[in-house]
Amino acid sequence: MEETLLFVIEVLGTVAFAISGIRLAATKGFDWFGAYTVGLVTAIGGGTLRDLLLDIPVFWMQTSWYLVVTGLSLATVIVFRSLLVSRDRILFVFDSIGLALFCVIGIQKTLAAGYPMWVATAMGVITGAFGGVIRDILINDEPIIFQKDIYATACLAGGLVYWLMAEAGAEAAWQQISCAAMVIGLRIASLKYNLQLPKV
Amino acid sequence: MEETLLFVIEVLGTVAFAISGIRLAATKGFDWFGAYTVGLVTAIGGGTLRDLLLDIPVFWMQTSWYLVVTGLSLATVIVFRSLLVSRDRILFVFDSIGLALFCVIGIQKTLAAGYPMWVATAMGVITGAFGGVIRDILINDEPIIFQKDIYATACLAGGLVYWLMAEAGAEAAWQQISCAAMVIGLRIASLKYNLQLPKV
Amino acid sequence: MEETLLFVIEVLGTVAFAISGIRLAATKGFDWFGAYTVGLVTAIGGGTLRDLLLDIPVFWMQTSWYLVVTGLSLATVIVFRSLLVSRDRILFVFDSIGLALFCVIGIQKTLAAGYPMWVATAMGVITGAFGGVIRDILINDEPIIFQKDIYATACLAGGLVYWLMAEAGAEAAWQQISCAAMVIGLRIASLKYNLQLPKV
Repeated sequence: MEETLLFVIEVLGTVAFAISGIRLAATKGFDWFGAYTVGLVTAIGGGTLRDLLLDIPVFWMQTSWYLVVTGLSLATVIVFRSLLVSRDRILFVFDSIGLALFCVIGIQKTLAAGYPMWVATAMGVITGAFGGVIRDILINDEPIIFQKDIYATACLAGGLVYWLMAEAGAEAAWQQISCAAMVIGLRIASLKYNLQLPKV
Repeated sequence: MEETLLFVIEVLGTVAFAISGIRLAATKGFDWFGAYTVGLVTAIGGGTLRDLLLDIPVFWMQTSWYLVVTGLSLATVIVFRSLLVSRDRILFVFDSIGLALFCVIGIQKTLAAGYPMWVATAMGVITGAFGGVIRDILINDEPIIFQKDIYATACLAGGLVYWLMAEAGAEAAWQQISCAAMVIGLRIASLKYNLQLPKV
Repeated sequence: MEETLLFVIEVLGTVAFAISGIRLAATKGFDWFGAYTVGLVTAIGGGTLRDLLLDIPVFWMQTSWYLVVTGLSLATVIVFRSLLVSRDRILFVFDSIGLALFCVIGIQKTLAAGYPMWVATAMGVITGAFGGVIRDILINDEPIIFQKDIYATACLAGGLVYWLMAEAGAEAAWQQISCAAMVIGLRIASLKYNLQLPKV
């Protein structure tokens, strides 16, 4: 039951990330293959970098559904072109939930590989945020998260909450839920109050 | 005998890929080191990403001839500057043969590492097409294969043919030859009939 | 004593590399997280690629001081904004010393992993020069070292000196010192006499 819920959340997160990549690819006039690749890289790029750095088997090569879900995302965007027009609220919610889950997964996998919490926090940020960086590199834009989004900061804050909960002796499930809540809460707050990090 | 033939084809493919990178680097005013690096990355980038993802020893670190052949390609371009002017037919043929061989090598290595056919097909595409993507990132262009070439699609079709031949019980050599023929045939057809994937 | 000296040099090199990234990020209007990331990637990117290619544990995941030093570099740039204005001489010296040390470390680690000298030279170049390449990709510029700097060439020359000293039977310490001296000497000479590689 809990596993099914996590699976559904991960699918929704993957869809949200893939669609964000596909939409940006469309604005650049990419063809189906280009859009598929950019969508896929947005969804799996951060986790792939994490798995390479941790020297563990790359997650999307163990099951084909990441590739399949990205294909379905592309088909959805092609059929319902209105998805291309505006960044609607539902996608923002999926995207925030996906970010929170990806961040938690990154932290968990790193701790399971025997690394300390500061490495795990870094891997949470990488898992959540670097798919978007690679996406922006592929479409030849300056990475958006380096300029106005608090995407990565939300992951970082989530990692700190995870850390504090662990130090406080909370159960693993509560560590994860607190982390995810922090990521989602900070994302929503940043949208509502237009929060940004200072520029250098 | 067969091994010598494969070696010659791989050298020609490496030369064709390296020259495509060196020529683009020249249009950007890169110096010798820059042109060498872009040429090398075009030739070995896809295979390097594949080997990292498969967690097997990186192929170009096992023998120095990839670096040597790239150096000879650079020397050739510098001496015969006319090579810089137009994408001639011979290079297109080398490039297509190289693409087909790289695609077959990617599939073979992945199957040998114990992965299923869908991962092997993905690795065929990565081996053949992603050197060019990294090249375009290094020269700060939008990846050409995401916009008008059917480069990656040819690899994908080649992978499907490989798969079908394997399912049909064909010998390994025939699987590989059919795959390569599909890649080369589709490349030539796409040039002749100006085939392109639809845009999103 | 010698180890303390090496540690101090590596810290200074990391600071110089990180500041070069942070300053370029500032010119693009990146926020704190973006500047931190670009600074970090400039400092650790080359070594990370090297460790992935060698399939050895990634160096900056073993101790937190690389992340800490980058944070201090960012704080320094924010507080002393005058650091943003001009590429001063002190940074150039740190940068050259850092480059030399990174190059030597790359060669040593590769030889320790059992690879021949030509791979070690390639890894010396990658360790020293590719953090800057990834930095330029992240800020969406054409890599500066492909166009006018003799950064990578200095590493290459240093690798050749290392090689020659090893062939001549010199002690390990002398191989390393000669290599570093070559890198630093060539950097300074290139600045003084405005040396550049020819363009293609």
